[in-house]
Amino acid sequence: MASNIKVGIVGYGNLGRGVEKAIKQNPDMELRAIFSRRNPDDVAAAGGVVHISELEKYKGDIDVLILCGGSATDLPQQGPELAAMFNTVDSYDNHAKIPEYFELVNASAAKGGNVSVISTGWDPGLFSLNRLLGQAILPEGNEYTFWGKGVSQGHSDAIRRVNGVKGGVQYTIPVEAAVDRVRNGENPELSTREKHMRECYVVAEDGADLGQIEREIKEMPNYFADYETTVHFISEEELKAKHSAMPHGGNVLRSGRTGENNTQIMEFGLKLDSNPEFTASVLVAYARAAYKLSQAGESGARTVFDIPFGLLSPKSPEQLRKELL
Amino acid sequence: MASNIKVGIVGYGNLGRGVEKAIKQNPDMELRAIFSRRNPDDVAAAGGVVHISELEKYKGDIDVLILCGGSATDLPQQGPELAAMFNTVDSYDNHAKIPEYFELVNASAAKGGNVSVISTGWDPGLFSLNRLLGQAILPEGNEYTFWGKGVSQGHSDAIRRVNGVKGGVQYTIPVEAAVDRVRNGENPELSTREKHMRECYVVAEDGADLGQIEREIKEMPNYFADYETTVHFISEEELKAKHSAMPHGGNVLRSGRTGENNTQIMEFGLKLDSNPEFTASVLVAYARAAYKLSQAGESGARTVFDIPFGLLSPKSPEQLRKELL
Repeated sequence: MASNIKVGIVGYGNLGRGVEKAIKQNPDMELRAIFSRRNPDDVAAAGGVVHISELEKYKGDIDVLILCGGSATDLPQQGPELAAMFNTVDSYDNHAKIPEYFELVNASAAKGGNVSVISTGWDPGLFSLNRLLGQAILPEGNEYTFWGKGVSQGHSDAIRRVNGVKGGVQYTIPVEAAVDRVRNGENPELSTREKHMRECYVVAEDGADLGQIEREIKEMPNYFADYETTVHFISEEELKAKHSAMPHGGNVLRSGRTGENNTQIMEFGLKLDSNPEFTASVLVAYARAAYKLSQAGESGARTVFDIPFGLLSPKSPEQLRKELL
Repeated sequence: MASNIKVGIVGYGNLGRGVEKAIKQNPDMELRAIFSRRNPDDVAAAGGVVHISELEKYKGDIDVLILCGGSATDLPQQGPELAAMFNTVDSYDNHAKIPEYFELVNASAAKGGNVSVISTGWDPGLFSLNRLLGQAILPEGNEYTFWGKGVSQGHSDAIRRVNGVKGGVQYTIPVEAAVDRVRNGENPELSTREKHMRECYVVAEDGADLGQIEREIKEMPNYFADYETTVHFISEEELKAKHSAMPHGGNVLRSGRTGENNTQIMEFGLKLDSNPEFTASVLVAYARAAYKLSQAGESGARTVFDIPFGLLSPKSPEQLRKELL
C-alpha cells in the first residue's frame, strides 16, 4: 500500500461532519484539514478547523477536496474555483443546472490538470446509475423512482415559512401499494398523488390558528397541493426528541419486458438512518476514484456515469476479480 | 448516429436465443450472424445459422461477438481463441477460475488488439458490482447474497442423476424471514440452512421407490444435505406444463454502519421471468461497451468492475448528464 490519500473537507455542516466520520472508516485515507468560512475558533471539530481563505496554501498537500457546501450558492462558486487548484468531489444536486455546472467545472479542472467528480451521492448518484443501468439493459420498460421514508429539507423549509409556524419537519413517504404494483410487474401509470404521501409535524406559535395553518400547508402549490398531505401538531419538545434524526431512502425500479412478454424487474433500494452520513460515505468512495484517475494522468470533470466501480474500492483489480466477481 | 454495431452470436442455446431477441430491442445494434457447432441445416433460426468453422471469414465484418456457450467446456476454449480475432463478451461464471480465465483472455485480446468483457450477466455481473459498491461505500458492515426464487440448473441435474428419476426441476428459494432480518438491520449470522430452501419437483419412473428417491435427494451432500429440502412427485405432463419456464432472481444486501451506530442498508434485487433472456440483455449492453472501448483504441480483457456505466448506454455523455443524472 502506498501512502494514504490526503483529504480536505470544505464546509462543516451535517455533510462535512459525515465525511469526517467516513474517512475514519477507510484506512487508506486520512483527513488533512477541514475548511470553513466561519471563524475557526467558533467551530467545534476534533482536529481543528482552518479558515477557507487559507485553502490555497494546502495545494500539493491535499490529494482530494470534498466539497460539502450547498448547491444553491456554495457549490456554483466553489466548484469551478477549487477545481482549478485541487482534485474535487461534490454532491451538486440542482438537476436542471447540472449540464451547465459540469461545463464550468470541466473547463476549470482541465486547465488546472485536476479531476473533479460532480453530483455524486445517492440522488444524483447511485440512483442515477441505476436509472441508466435499467434503461441500458431493459430498453423496453418503465422506470420508477420512489423517495422515502425520509425528511425533505425543501418541504420542511416550506412548512416553516407558513404564518404561525414555529418549527416543523416534513416526511416524504412512498405509497407502498404503488411500489408493490411496480414490483409485481403491472407497469402502472402513477400520478404524483399515487406515488408519494407527505406527512408534516408542525410546532405552532402560541395562539396561532391551527386550522388556518393546516389549510395553508395542504393547499401550497407544488409542495403539497398535489399530494395526500397529513398535518400533526406537536410540541417543541416532541419535535426535538422524535424528529431530529435524518433518515431517508428510496427505490429505483425498472420494469422491463424481454422476448415474448417476459417481465423482468430490477430494483435498487436504500434504507438510511442518516442521509448525510450515507451521502458522505458515497463522496468518500468517489474521492478515492478521483485520486486514482488523477494519478493515472486524467483531468477534467467526471460524473458517476464515467467512473468504473473498481476505482471506488481500495482493492486492486486482481483482488476484486478474485474476491468479488 | 453512426452505423449500427454489428453483432455475432456464438452458440445458439437458451442464452444465444435470448441475445438474438435482445438485439432486436436495441436500434443501434444489428445481428450479423449466428454461429453454431451443429449442422446449420439442423438449427431453426429466423436469419439462418453459420457453422462455427466459418467464423474467421467474418473478421472485419463483426464488431463484437457475444459468446453464449457454457463455462464448463465451451468458454475456456472459445474465450481465449476468439479474443484474438474479435471483440468479445461472455458470461463465464466459474467463480474460482475467473482470475485464470481473465489472464488467458487478456493475453489473447491484447495481442489481437481487441476488447473482451468477461464474466458479465447478473452473477457474476450486476450482483458483483453491487457487492463491490456496498463494500466501498460502507466498509464497516456485512454483505448478504440471496438467490431465487429460481431454477438451479446444477441442482436440477443432480436430481436427474438419482436412480429411478425420469425428470425433475429444483427451485432455490430464499428464506423470507432471513431476508427481512437483514433488511431490518439486524446483521444476523446466517447458516446455509437459514438462507435458502430447496424445492424439488420430481417425475419418477414407473414402479420406482419414491421413499428411496426422496431420501437420496435430501441426503445428497453439498447439493441438498445442508438445506431444508422438499420433494414433490408430479407427472411428466405437470413438469412440462408448470415447470418449463426459467424464472430466477435474488438480492444483494449490504448492511453497514456509519457515525455513531447509524444503520445504512443498500439493496439490489432482480425478479426475472426469464433468466437467460435477462442475462442476454446484460451481455448485449456490455457488447455496446466493448465496442465503444475498442473504438477508443483500448484492448485487453475487462470485467464489469472496469467499465463505466455510461458506456452501456446508446446515449451520449451529454444526454446522460441532462436526462439521467
